[in-house]
Amino acid sequence: MYKELLEQIETNQFKEVKSALVEMHVQDIADLLEQVDPPKNLVKVFKLLPKDMGAEVFSYIESDIQKKLVDALSDKDLSFLVEEMYIDDAVDFVAEMPANIVERTLKASTKETRQLINKYLGYGPETAGSIMTPEFIDLKEQMTKEACLKRIKKLGEDVETINVLYVTDSARVLKGVLSIRQLLLADDDTTVGEIMHDNVVFAETSTDQEEISNLFKQYDFLALPIVDSEKRLVGIVTIDDVIEVIEEETTEDISKMAATTPNEKPYLKTSTFKLWINRVPWLVLLLVSSTFTGLIISKNETLLSTGIYGILLTACMPMIMGTGGNAGGQASATIIRSIVLNEISFKDLFKVMWKEFRLSLLLGFSLAVVCFGKIMLIDGLLFNTPGVDWLSALVISAAMFLAIVMAKIVGCTLPLIAKKCKLDPAVMASPFITTILDTLSLLVYCQLALAFLM
Amino acid sequence: MYKELLEQIETNQFKEVKSALVEMHVQDIADLLEQVDPPKNLVKVFKLLPKDMGAEVFSYIESDIQKKLVDALSDKDLSFLVEEMYIDDAVDFVAEMPANIVERTLKASTKETRQLINKYLGYGPETAGSIMTPEFIDLKEQMTKEACLKRIKKLGEDVETINVLYVTDSARVLKGVLSIRQLLLADDDTTVGEIMHDNVVFAETSTDQEEISNLFKQYDFLALPIVDSEKRLVGIVTIDDVIEVIEEETTEDISKMAATTPNEKPYLKTSTFKLWINRVPWLVLLLVSSTFTGLIISKNETLLSTGIYGILLTACMPMIMGTGGNAGGQASATIIRSIVLNEISFKDLFKVMWKEFRLSLLLGFSLAVVCFGKIMLIDGLLFNTPGVDWLSALVISAAMFLAIVMAKIVGCTLPLIAKKCKLDPAVMASPFITTILDTLSLLVYCQLALAFLM
Repeated sequence: MYKELLEQIETNQFKEVKSALVEMHVQDIADLLEQVDPPKNLVKVFKLLPKDMGAEVFSYIESDIQKKLVDALSDKDLSFLVEEMYIDDAVDFVAEMPANIVERTLKASTKETRQLINKYLGYGPETAGSIMTPEFIDLKEQMTKEACLKRIKKLGEDVETINVLYVTDSARVLKGVLSIRQLLLADDDTTVGEIMHDNVVFAETSTDQEEISNLFKQYDFLALPIVDSEKRLVGIVTIDDVIEVIEEETTEDISKMAATTPNEKPYLKTSTFKLWINRVPWLVLLLVSSTFTGLIISKNETLLSTGIYGILLTACMPMIMGTGGNAGGQASATIIRSIVLNEISFKDLFKVMWKEFRLSLLLGFSLAVVCFGKIMLIDGLLFNTPGVDWLSALVISAAMFLAIVMAKIVGCTLPLIAKKCKLDPAVMASPFITTILDTLSLLVYCQLALAFLM
Repeated sequence: MYKELLEQIETNQFKEVKSALVEMHVQDIADLLEQVDPPKNLVKVFKLLPKDMGAEVFSYIESDIQKKLVDALSDKDLSFLVEEMYIDDAVDFVAEMPANIVERTLKASTKETRQLINKYLGYGPETAGSIMTPEFIDLKEQMTKEACLKRIKKLGEDVETINVLYVTDSARVLKGVLSIRQLLLADDDTTVGEIMHDNVVFAETSTDQEEISNLFKQYDFLALPIVDSEKRLVGIVTIDDVIEVIEEETTEDISKMAATTPNEKPYLKTSTFKLWINRVPWLVLLLVSSTFTGLIISKNETLLSTGIYGILLTACMPMIMGTGGNAGGQASATIIRSIVLNEISFKDLFKVMWKEFRLSLLLGFSLAVVCFGKIMLIDGLLFNTPGVDWLSALVISAAMFLAIVMAKIVGCTLPLIAKKCKLDPAVMASPFITTILDTLSLLVYCQLALAFLM
């Protein structure tokens, strides 16, 4: 992509580049700029853009390229850029920059913008306040359709969306909401108060962004009003920001489910050291907790190393633990996802347990049959492993059955309990549950073997 | 929630219920209806709704409740319902119903609606065609602002959105796109051709829904035009459908990553038998593949059951395999997610491998140190496990180091290779990789032990 354009840039054909750029989508221009090398050309290409387009493109550029650009811009250009950007984009930009650039940026901004940016930087991370924008259209109840259209025409250029319009009273308290469609379809003499919805769904600046995205999913909103503690309208969150939140939260969940600390930056832009920090504590924790399995094995050394069944029992150990771990991982992943999608909550604990219990009987029985067959046929007939007979195969299959039942029960309950305790259910995924199940299933396995095979 | 309303319904206070309903959001009414019991009351409450609101509420109700409702509706009511619903919602509804209801529904529809529904049912699952709607506003290039506003007022009630407007020529070929904002901010004598974007991003009816959602993420669209093979505009996909697609695809990924076949229905509505079908093949596959670890163990029986190091080596087996599996799972989950987010692709294979290799040296070394300490202190000093000395601790820690290096390399390459082979990378997650790594790390472990501890 952009091969021709990149060549034109290399060969300084900036006139051709400029006429191509104005036809492009801003997001594509941002992609292009990220591929331009050396930085000198980057600045040249950026300056080809009409100024208002430049600000929009800038907000889509990754922060390391933003930094290179800002280093090359004059204070005047920087000032224009900051004023032209939507406040939420400007805040995102400032939040990613090193101190010297932040200082330069704030100095270059108007007092009003500077105050706004500082205010937004004060909202907690992952709150509605941190993702909202103050650029929306507010109307008053008594306004007529014509007055509204005039206001939209006046402010429309600078707001984030005109698709949803907000109604406030003189104290800026949120009173209602209406869509641009309702306004356009209304008769000319209608006032805002007559057509607005007064049963408004809103959130506060401190609301967690995950709750915000749940509201969008529930109501198919395009924008959601955000109010302060006095119910005064201070901003709106738009759907494009919510999609980013959904992606971010999913990445977080998947990371935690794989026992990694989530990372905000893209993989290839994350330093190896940072990745090490994200991964090492979990591995150490899981390694140390494997002390339990080690203990169980050394306590049962006679069982596992002597007698006719010793080898077979040792050889089947990884299979029992592995299957238990996989069965538990299936249950926990399904439950964790259902919790995230608001399909189940702690009150469903017994319903879930009952379902997983019946399921575990079915699965346990199926797997026990396969296990029995595998031991008799593959281990016994095919590879002549010593110790294979119907009794040992039966005992190992019974251990398999019990391991699966335990796995499903543990796998489905722990995420729900975590949720109840205000912990993140995603942490209760496979690696964590596997460690618990390894211990449990090994215990059952050795006890059964001791009872019937010694 | 809805406690008071549900009580009023139970006690037949339908007048109060009705006045409460018209103030509510349609999605909340749908939630309420799903909690109404017995079904007789369900129908009564539904009929309290103004008819156009009824159709909207109906499209948010889960299919098992939809079925109960339709069973109780007259053909005339059903006909009104179907005509009033957006086509994409009507298609979703028909697709979920049993044959007899489908037949009744199609009979009750007008010929035009029937043809549309049948056409939509013909689009492949998970394609743009299956999620688009034909209800949009199309304009012509020569139309003035006034003519456009008139057309919007005429059609606005029945289309899915007026926020984005499409421009077609006389052969219905897509020519351009403009937002309602551009139209409203334009001067009165402007024509559509002057302000529309002619560099339109669009997709075809057969495009995969995952690609559609990537376009929305890339360009922050609210709607995307869908064309047929002659570039004629046939429908639009709107952002609310895309959010559903994103959720669906994420659930699919997480299911596959946990070795479960993805399920379309919510967990509690899925039968135990269906869950069994989703889970059992994977467990069987993983169980049978554990034959390899079993073989390695029985081939090394002398090593593991005799000599001073036998017990220690057996006791540390789960730790080596477990840590290898966890380390591989971390890498594969990170890479799978990055592939989904379009951050990396097959061309980055060597960059990724190089990064994971350096990371694995760091992690391997850290974990080997912890492992050495754990064996000497916990196993040796604390529990007096026989066979603990500096040599055995060193050999086991070295095996740990190698297991982690292998785990990271396997974990990061397999998803990328799967993607290259047009397989779903998500299948290459922890359970699958663990099975491979169990075998590899056990081999290395036994070889090292044979070389230094026999």
